[in-house]
Amino acid sequence: MRIALAQINYHIGNFSGNVSRILQAIGRAITDGAELVVFAELAVSGYPPGDFLEFDDFITQCHKAIGQIAAGCVGITAIVGAPERNPAEHGKGLFNAAYVLADGEVKTIRRKTLLPDYDVFDEYRYFEPNTEFDIVQVGDKKIALTICEDLWNFGNNAFYTTTPIDELMRHQPDLMINIAASPFNYTQHVARTDMLLANVNRYKLPLFYVNHVGAQTELLFDGGSLAIGADGKVAGELKYFEEDFEVFDTDNLSVHSPQRPGDKYPADDRKIGLIHDALVMGIRNYFGKLGFDRALLGLSGGLDSAVTLALAAQALGNDNVLSVLMPSPFSSQHSVDDSLEMLQNFGSPHEIISIGDAYESFGKILAPIFKDLPFGLTEENLQARIRGTLLMAISNKFGYIVLNTSNKSEAAVGYGTLYGDMNGGLSVLGDVYKTDVFALARYINRNGEVIPENIITKPPSAELRPDQKDSDSLPDYDILDKILYQYIELQKGSQELIAAGCDEATVRRILKLVNTSEYKRHQTPPILRVSPKAFGRGRRMPIVAKYLL
Amino acid sequence: MRIALAQINYHIGNFSGNVSRILQAIGRAITDGAELVVFAELAVSGYPPGDFLEFDDFITQCHKAIGQIAAGCVGITAIVGAPERNPAEHGKGLFNAAYVLADGEVKTIRRKTLLPDYDVFDEYRYFEPNTEFDIVQVGDKKIALTICEDLWNFGNNAFYTTTPIDELMRHQPDLMINIAASPFNYTQHVARTDMLLANVNRYKLPLFYVNHVGAQTELLFDGGSLAIGADGKVAGELKYFEEDFEVFDTDNLSVHSPQRPGDKYPADDRKIGLIHDALVMGIRNYFGKLGFDRALLGLSGGLDSAVTLALAAQALGNDNVLSVLMPSPFSSQHSVDDSLEMLQNFGSPHEIISIGDAYESFGKILAPIFKDLPFGLTEENLQARIRGTLLMAISNKFGYIVLNTSNKSEAAVGYGTLYGDMNGGLSVLGDVYKTDVFALARYINRNGEVIPENIITKPPSAELRPDQKDSDSLPDYDILDKILYQYIELQKGSQELIAAGCDEATVRRILKLVNTSEYKRHQTPPILRVSPKAFGRGRRMPIVAKYLL
Repeated sequence: MRIALAQINYHIGNFSGNVSRILQAIGRAITDGAELVVFAELAVSGYPPGDFLEFDDFITQCHKAIGQIAAGCVGITAIVGAPERNPAEHGKGLFNAAYVLADGEVKTIRRKTLLPDYDVFDEYRYFEPNTEFDIVQVGDKKIALTICEDLWNFGNNAFYTTTPIDELMRHQPDLMINIAASPFNYTQHVARTDMLLANVNRYKLPLFYVNHVGAQTELLFDGGSLAIGADGKVAGELKYFEEDFEVFDTDNLSVHSPQRPGDKYPADDRKIGLIHDALVMGIRNYFGKLGFDRALLGLSGGLDSAVTLALAAQALGNDNVLSVLMPSPFSSQHSVDDSLEMLQNFGSPHEIISIGDAYESFGKILAPIFKDLPFGLTEENLQARIRGTLLMAISNKFGYIVLNTSNKSEAAVGYGTLYGDMNGGLSVLGDVYKTDVFALARYINRNGEVIPENIITKPPSAELRPDQKDSDSLPDYDILDKILYQYIELQKGSQELIAAGCDEATVRRILKLVNTSEYKRHQTPPILRVSPKAFGRGRRMPIVAKYLL
Repeated sequence: MRIALAQINYHIGNFSGNVSRILQAIGRAITDGAELVVFAELAVSGYPPGDFLEFDDFITQCHKAIGQIAAGCVGITAIVGAPERNPAEHGKGLFNAAYVLADGEVKTIRRKTLLPDYDVFDEYRYFEPNTEFDIVQVGDKKIALTICEDLWNFGNNAFYTTTPIDELMRHQPDLMINIAASPFNYTQHVARTDMLLANVNRYKLPLFYVNHVGAQTELLFDGGSLAIGADGKVAGELKYFEEDFEVFDTDNLSVHSPQRPGDKYPADDRKIGLIHDALVMGIRNYFGKLGFDRALLGLSGGLDSAVTLALAAQALGNDNVLSVLMPSPFSSQHSVDDSLEMLQNFGSPHEIISIGDAYESFGKILAPIFKDLPFGLTEENLQARIRGTLLMAISNKFGYIVLNTSNKSEAAVGYGTLYGDMNGGLSVLGDVYKTDVFALARYINRNGEVIPENIITKPPSAELRPDQKDSDSLPDYDILDKILYQYIELQKGSQELIAAGCDEATVRRILKLVNTSEYKRHQTPPILRVSPKAFGRGRRMPIVAKYLL
């Protein structure tokens, strides 16, 4: 049997757009002689639809979309993900379902059993777990059809007590199909392939896996849909970070064996290369799906804004990113010079605005209240907020979206000014530790200097008071990032960190900074997620808590 | 048997504080001759602990706390909520458990079966559901012990397929105890009492219910713990919005019959009275638990900031709320006069700062970029951002927390300026529709004028351009709020609203405003939750979606 895998960039709630892309792929699959075409989990709605699932009207739209797609399924079978209303009197109102469409109608429906409800996932909020198991017959093939997480347990996943694929094996299927919405992080392509191969090696059946591609605000989907032969050899892997479409013959899977998309990244740089491409896609899709095409950022002369500019220029085009240089009385001349040098490399537009006058004006306004209190954090924040206000004014006037340039190390310890440099519609680097931002800069420069060397090598500084350096108030970034990674990604407590040899005073200071900055992170822009544990929807911390202080 | 109900304001992760309050209540229960003292769900950690539950160290601290409390349980039995590690190899790592402590040790543990995972609740993220049912023996009584949601289904709750209390009834208990963490909204006291009474009427057993009291950031717990006799008569209801402690004799429940706390609100004003007291507690606890005592707000002369000032003054004391008046060239004199009149009523401190100079300074800085483009939304936002920056500067310098004064109607349609009037550590009125803000103002004035009449009666205006009124760009608030309520609280789609008689163009315009403002609400302060559907953690909407547009 010829099976087409359609890897599509859906748009949440954009039913006409999603249906039209799906119908187009069905047409292509028919042309290519496929008997079956497979789409991703919750394809008609986009993933994750969030609380739109609680609107009856939204579910009705999903079902209309399924009807329209079914009408196009003549001479071919399609598997398409969509929510299904739960017909039972009790339990959650929906199932996360796979619709099997042929002869212009819905032939059968399969439901998801294992509902992820951790990190960025909330599926039990909406869906009832499936408890009935049966194969799907398409032509002469018996198919074990599962949805995403259902394949992630064959008795070795601590989260779950059932193994859906084992239940399906009782019906002696000929092949396995899994439709997924499995978001990217820099470890995910390995975890995903390992998990799929483990299923193949265990059940000795071919496996076809279709994932989403594209960004839905902070969640990035890398695609990488897979066809694997019963022998455990990858017959084909669809592109990363791009839509793709490929047809496989189940009886002749070894004919394929293309270079895998991951191979294009040099082994040493794979993590950074993947993060780079994920961020570029994330920026591009955020703008595209909101109907914007131009970005604006404050270019400080430091590393974070330089890397953000490079990524945004690649995502949107050099001409579509406006850099604003906003020197203050504490900015060094080399910051302006370095920025201008970088802009020359790009030919991107820029503006230079001195914030000195506005800063003085606020000083005068506040003098009767501040009296002769000394210069301090307030005045540092004031500079950041004047810059944030200027960026927003230009954004409002001309229809730009402001890109936030904060990195994950700063976001973690709260070294950023709310309503100042923490502004923006989207945080590009908020899930990238400073040490990885350095690596990203080197990666961006891999084929020639894009970011001037001086921006990469000079000591990081916020330049908010004379001769300020990040290292005045924070440990070196290699020490800081190690502690943060242990605490945030690995969820180690202070005791464990100290027992592992970290300096006790440093650990206590850093963890206290992280916990007491929760109120700031609560108000930050969505952060493009590239790690297994990003700030935002996947990390839900109380604000008024008193723990590890 | 004498049973003590201890209704306590816990602090998330503050183990020493929580343990000390629990031990104090145990001491009092012993003194009062109680055989059993009952505390709330997840009492040792505070509720909701969020992703702290994923830290092994946090669970260890919970168990240390249970050990310390058990050591104090000599001559009395205590029921205390805490997380329990799941000993099984598979399933979520924790149970949401009730520890039964006596003779200085843990006697037995019961686990929660029904895990709420909707609106503000995420319990399936952390907890495995219980599947084993047994009563707890204390003295000569057999107790059907359940945790919160477990009592919210006896076959009539669509969410769940099991009925824990039915299982427990097979063991023929003598009484029911439920420990809860059931957050307030203005419908909750009725829903809660109805649900508890329905259980009593069905099983003909006395029921003792212990809830949290106090605020944990946006979640407000109103207390209202209950003792109900087997005859369905309320023997006692503990205070709303305050810690409380009471002892009941199971064999003589009708001796009690105090006035119920809800009775103090006149029937006509009950909803508004409850919201008022909930907000005052929410402000007080947010500051108290973060270790702050002084608030700052921009007093515009409009209704929202006036009501916020009144609530904050009651929560923190008149002297502890600094009002800043920041007239612009578009502000009317009566706005300043009305504000000053209100401040005179309070004797609260204030500052007057004209923003004209800063506004001009930004105008000059931006002139080379804006050239001769006309005055517009950008300049309106600029005024709001200058004010926001001034408030944050004063907050930074003197250690105030800025209170946000936006109401729910504005937050819904995006009529607010990010990094401007949407600033603040806490949103006081963000879950109160404008029509209810009017009612709150009348309630605050019920015993004499606190908020000047002119502030209540004048047409709402942002005063960001000449002669601006809210009604220039929005429908009247009574029409707007009706549509918003149907869409947000009742989750009706546009079709349903139009079918119900709402004007089609208005519905489409309002729903589009709500959906396209999601990016703004993503960056707002936590909002004190007083309704069944507040913006924030209980309403999770995608940002880049395209639906109902």
